[in-house]
Amino acid sequence: MELHISPHRLRIASILKKDIDLFTHSLIKLSLLHQQVSCNFFSFTETCDDFSLIIDQEGLKELPSRAELMVQSTVWLALDAIPSFVDADSNSGLTMTTKSIITSLADKNISVYNLSTYQTDFILVKEDEYDDVVTCLSNDFKILEESQDGEMIPVVCQEVDENSRRNTCGLHTPRPVVHSFHSPDNRFLVTCLQPEQLSHLTSTLLKLMFYSNSFLPSPKDGHERFLSLSIINQKISLVVDVESIALFPGGSLCTGAEEYWRMIKIGNLPLGFDESGIVAQISEPLAEAGIPIYYISTFLNDHTLVSEADIERAFAILESKRGKMIDGNSCEPDDSLHFSNR
Amino acid sequence: MELHISPHRLRIASILKKDIDLFTHSLIKLSLLHQQVSCNFFSFTETCDDFSLIIDQEGLKELPSRAELMVQSTVWLALDAIPSFVDADSNSGLTMTTKSIITSLADKNISVYNLSTYQTDFILVKEDEYDDVVTCLSNDFKILEESQDGEMIPVVCQEVDENSRRNTCGLHTPRPVVHSFHSPDNRFLVTCLQPEQLSHLTSTLLKLMFYSNSFLPSPKDGHERFLSLSIINQKISLVVDVESIALFPGGSLCTGAEEYWRMIKIGNLPLGFDESGIVAQISEPLAEAGIPIYYISTFLNDHTLVSEADIERAFAILESKRGKMIDGNSCEPDDSLHFSNR
Repeated sequence: MELHISPHRLRIASILKKDIDLFTHSLIKLSLLHQQVSCNFFSFTETCDDFSLIIDQEGLKELPSRAELMVQSTVWLALDAIPSFVDADSNSGLTMTTKSIITSLADKNISVYNLSTYQTDFILVKEDEYDDVVTCLSNDFKILEESQDGEMIPVVCQEVDENSRRNTCGLHTPRPVVHSFHSPDNRFLVTCLQPEQLSHLTSTLLKLMFYSNSFLPSPKDGHERFLSLSIINQKISLVVDVESIALFPGGSLCTGAEEYWRMIKIGNLPLGFDESGIVAQISEPLAEAGIPIYYISTFLNDHTLVSEADIERAFAILESKRGKMIDGNSCEPDDSLHFSNR
Repeated sequence: MELHISPHRLRIASILKKDIDLFTHSLIKLSLLHQQVSCNFFSFTETCDDFSLIIDQEGLKELPSRAELMVQSTVWLALDAIPSFVDADSNSGLTMTTKSIITSLADKNISVYNLSTYQTDFILVKEDEYDDVVTCLSNDFKILEESQDGEMIPVVCQEVDENSRRNTCGLHTPRPVVHSFHSPDNRFLVTCLQPEQLSHLTSTLLKLMFYSNSFLPSPKDGHERFLSLSIINQKISLVVDVESIALFPGGSLCTGAEEYWRMIKIGNLPLGFDESGIVAQISEPLAEAGIPIYYISTFLNDHTLVSEADIERAFAILESKRGKMIDGNSCEPDDSLHFSNR
């Protein structure tokens, strides 16, 4: 199997709701008018708490360097499985390949930040853990690094400590779910847009991205604001609340088989960027149960999207995996589990 | 003849080019997404120096109150001649009615700020000179004030000092042009948009309004950046450089008889808001020569638009009226003229 490391050096950032006006000018340039901007990796997610960004360093230069932009200090690199090698059920959530990458990294205590898009999954790893990532994955994957000019260069693995490698394989680390989670009542559409559609949808996307407080009705009881738009290498992916679909001109969204998705939101408190294993705790049991998911990490919390047909089963599976909760009080304490290796 | 005083209490403001990102979020709301905002008078003009606004007080509340927004201290009221009474050549520039209002006010040393739109001309006067304005114009016009709920209420003129009134009529004040002026080489289209077109043109208007430095080519030698968009009582007027028309989707602009306009820009230095007679100095001789004009005041300077067929004649007429220049050195001193009554 091939694994692709993209050349973009990525940063993760957050903007408070009240400060979005300070960045709207730049964010429009990076998204709705992106054609003339040299940013190749841009992800924008509005949650109920903040606007969360993943952006390459060229894109970051477009944003004003104000205190109101919280930029996480780490440089991240994006891994994705080469499309021709992904499972047949790609385009409907996190692939088995992705899952195996995530669990391998979790087993080595390497933390990841995940961005599922309509087209593919990006697993972000810290640049300063690059060697560890390569060591961890080179047994199972042929790793290719894309150079700045688009050439694919095989990555030569550093000498591997055999003990360390042996540790990675075969051993099944127990992985209880340690963060509390809940599922808002919203239903979501996961779809793509063609770049040439953007100019026709600018008015709608403007309202959705920057004016949800002014122009959209407040979320219904039990619903939570969530919107995710990413433009990565000219491919546009959109996750939008079904209630907002009416804002789009008729026929402009490919709603496909009208499959809608529910969300499981992970973490009551900010998850931080150092804890490893969070994505694996959720994705592994769901993948084992054959439930496709999209998994979108944001600055504060993680979000798993599950087909609405699967939501009850998925929730029950995660309930059954609950460990000792770090950030919630709705769990059964289970002292037999230990988390020192997360 | 009827004269209409609109109920909007207007403010004039300016934003430096470098600060536009601080206000883009609000300005988009007031313009491209204006349908849900309770602002009824919004005018946005980009010049080569600044972004100049005329905005009612409801609209002003939408703008963040930052030091970077320079708001002129006066409250202004807008006069316009009731459409059914305007000259037959309306929709092609400043009407004779408007001209007669402007010259009457200039004769009484009442300063005005003028905004021509595709649909009509608005003559802004200072709220604290309201009584003087009514006194000055009530002889020649039936003045109607629109109440907040849309009712037209005749304005009863205060007792008029007969000497003052006599002074107004008949006497032809000499009115040389006292500010330097020049004409950039650009050609402009003056047109209207239907409100329902805005959502289709959002991407184009975004680029034109807020990203001219990023997305438009630098103005050619001899050209100057100028764009004016106003949305007043749901009527949209647009003055756009011919070079920018290509940005609009085919057929979206009604270019009419393909009549293009040239600009005469008045003032080397900021004109301020207290000097009276500036608009009259330009509009009176051009009106007398039968040359239709649009006249757009901005925070710093004034701009007269003249059909390109008339530009040489118009320029020559203004040249012949040059008095002692206040802000330029390209004039013949003419000490026989006195300006104490401007």
